[in-house]
Amino acid sequence: MRTIKLLIAYDGTDLVGWQRQPAGVSVQGLLEEAVAPFQNGPVSVIGAGRTDAGVHAAGQVASVQLASAAGVEDLRRSLNARLPPVVRVLGAGEAPASFHARFDARTKTYEYRILNGAVISPFMHRYAWHVPWPLDLDRMAAAARAIEGTHDFACFQSTGSGVQTSVRQMYESRVTAVSGLPGFTPFPDATANGSRLIVYRVRGSGFLRHMVRAIVGTLVDIGRGSVDPSIMPRLLAGEPRSAAGPTAPAHGLCLASVSYDPPPELVAAHR
Amino acid sequence: MRTIKLLIAYDGTDLVGWQRQPAGVSVQGLLEEAVAPFQNGPVSVIGAGRTDAGVHAAGQVASVQLASAAGVEDLRRSLNARLPPVVRVLGAGEAPASFHARFDARTKTYEYRILNGAVISPFMHRYAWHVPWPLDLDRMAAAARAIEGTHDFACFQSTGSGVQTSVRQMYESRVTAVSGLPGFTPFPDATANGSRLIVYRVRGSGFLRHMVRAIVGTLVDIGRGSVDPSIMPRLLAGEPRSAAGPTAPAHGLCLASVSYDPPPELVAAHR
Repeated sequence: MRTIKLLIAYDGTDLVGWQRQPAGVSVQGLLEEAVAPFQNGPVSVIGAGRTDAGVHAAGQVASVQLASAAGVEDLRRSLNARLPPVVRVLGAGEAPASFHARFDARTKTYEYRILNGAVISPFMHRYAWHVPWPLDLDRMAAAARAIEGTHDFACFQSTGSGVQTSVRQMYESRVTAVSGLPGFTPFPDATANGSRLIVYRVRGSGFLRHMVRAIVGTLVDIGRGSVDPSIMPRLLAGEPRSAAGPTAPAHGLCLASVSYDPPPELVAAHR
Repeated sequence: MRTIKLLIAYDGTDLVGWQRQPAGVSVQGLLEEAVAPFQNGPVSVIGAGRTDAGVHAAGQVASVQLASAAGVEDLRRSLNARLPPVVRVLGAGEAPASFHARFDARTKTYEYRILNGAVISPFMHRYAWHVPWPLDLDRMAAAARAIEGTHDFACFQSTGSGVQTSVRQMYESRVTAVSGLPGFTPFPDATANGSRLIVYRVRGSGFLRHMVRAIVGTLVDIGRGSVDPSIMPRLLAGEPRSAAGPTAPAHGLCLASVSYDPPPELVAAHR
């Protein structure tokens, strides 16, 4: 048996999420079916982050143990030929036998996109949350910075998550904005008038269920002025989940990248 | 009765095209249903370009005659509230009573996108034709320039189009490429490695059915070396449709903009 690592992107719009479910199409299920011809017997594809239904990934990492001697580039091509176009294997590489995409992940980076303007482009509505009301970016940015450091994120956790500890380390938590949406959509159009794309980027040691979306819901409440920015440190100091904002919709969220130590060497998609 | 002009964008992936059809969802049909509450009786929405099934628009223009006295900004909001998110009214404005979006159009600009690389991003596969084999950009660019000027485009016309003349004027016909795809997709990912986006942009007085897609199919044949670049002037000098390349797929094509003289004043979407 050898261990293969995969770099994967997917449009989560019509998927039930990373994890195999009794019903619906999952990324894990699609990958396990695509890998099956390379294996005599059951195969398990392990993802670094178990993204929820509707969440996208630009840099998900997965590990899989295979008996096949197939070259990694042949494997990558073959998987892409079997996968639907909404899931792509961007790279494949050999990993140490013990490599485990989830347990070995050092940090994960998520990005959440908000389209702040009157109209959201038909080319963006699958990938950004449309927030039409005015948002105070400075308030949001200041509140986002309070997330950085080691905190108990119980306040941003979905109930019934059942994890042992809700303490996590956040290395980066920033809100930035792009005006005019230069080149953001494949077809630049007049929705850029008066619109801006707000991106929340957070990199941490790990994330609780719905944590990024609950942070974003709170940041938007702060940005529209319905709660005071001081709610963020108070939440981190022990205020309950009910004091945080609503969970932002899944389709604005994307797993941007996963880091390992040392970083895995991948055979990228070359022509 | 007043005449209203609309600026419209749509993701054509799941639509049967601009024109109302006996079956399937059309842009025209969606707009006429959305306008209906403003009208007592039948309403007809006229589009500048009758885009085919699967073709996108970033700057389609339409005209509609209405008895309603509703403000154009209210109209725009109301239409967007009734339309699915894949169709957006970006702006609305008053037009002279005689304004006709199709007959009055001076030029239309189409863009065709080709993703040239091993893997196409899941965030781009709806908006670009994936061409994995090597393409000679210089050959394609030179051949594209031959299109500029006044020519008989019969060679690039679908059979049975039934138009009176196939002579059209082309003011711009250019092939350009973007490497690394900076900001092109909402979620930049490793598909950018070794990939480039090739954009064919053509602006003309009018277009025959499937004309842009037939030109692109021929440009790709030229770019991959299967035909000589001299085919382009020969086709324009009278070689038959069968000597041109295949019709490129619809999903790479986008109606970028329509120009009028004088340009219509639109109330754009502001916050």
